[in-house]
Amino acid sequence: MPLMDCTFCRIVAGTEPSQTVHEDEHTIAFLNIAQATRGHALVVPRVHYRDLGEIPVETAAQVMRAAVEVSRRLAGALGAAGVNLWHASGETAWQSVFHFHLHVVPRFEPTDLTPPWTEVEHPVESLAGLAEEIKAWH
Amino acid sequence: MPLMDCTFCRIVAGTEPSQTVHEDEHTIAFLNIAQATRGHALVVPRVHYRDLGEIPVETAAQVMRAAVEVSRRLAGALGAAGVNLWHASGETAWQSVFHFHLHVVPRFEPTDLTPPWTEVEHPVESLAGLAEEIKAWH
Ligand SMILES: [Zn+2]
Ligand SMILES: [Zn+2]
Repeated sequence: MPLMDCTFCRIVAGTEPSQTVHEDEHTIAFLNIAQATRGHALVVPRVHYRDLGEIPVETAAQVMRAAVEVSRRLAGALGAAGVNLWHASGETAWQSVFHFHLHVVPRFEPTDLTPPWTEVEHPVESLAGLAEEIKAWH
Repeated sequence: MPLMDCTFCRIVAGTEPSQTVHEDEHTIAFLNIAQATRGHALVVPRVHYRDLGEIPVETAAQVMRAAVEVSRRLAGALGAAGVNLWHASGETAWQSVFHFHLHVVPRFEPTDLTPPWTEVEHPVESLAGLAEEIKAWH
């Protein structure tokens, strides 16, 4: 199950160095070596799953439980005033390591943060057809 | 428990119009009227919690379960090739509605997506002290 060519599998196995900040039965959280802010951590399941299409729902729930713990730890230990969670599934969504992971990014001061998209406002009624299209899928 | 001055509480109560794409006992997902991409949805707990500091861990896990379902629905119904999840806790982290919510953003083509941060690479050993500081908090 662990993939030798997967950096995060090697971190879980302990054959790749990492700085862990939280561990439980199902997940491990460690500092991203590419720190966006001080304390920027990644939460990963111990078992290798590629993305939101592949991860079991219960494993994703475990990752979120760990992310809540990590976010509180970052707030408590480092005094972060805010926290962002970020996840990417697919190259189209900016995924670069193909072992499911959730970024936990502490924020320390008001930033001129660029959101990762440009939003376009729609009247809510105009979205009815789209909602139907999504709900009809099975 | 529902706050009359909270838009998302009113959506849960049905007194504010919305286009839902998924509902279960604990959560509701609806199209963001500010669509970053076609199908951009928000998952919220039915009960009002402000942020990652306030939401019970199990409720956050429920939100993630729903987000996995919604992401698969967006991929299946709309043909999204990728998906991003995004969450903000705190004004410092770009939170604007203070009822916990998780963005589910389908991606349809390679984008010149601007990540919401600038990363700085660190040798992993240099992060040991920071990891200790975080782990020591309780
Ligand atoms: Zn892996
Ligand atoms: Zn609310």
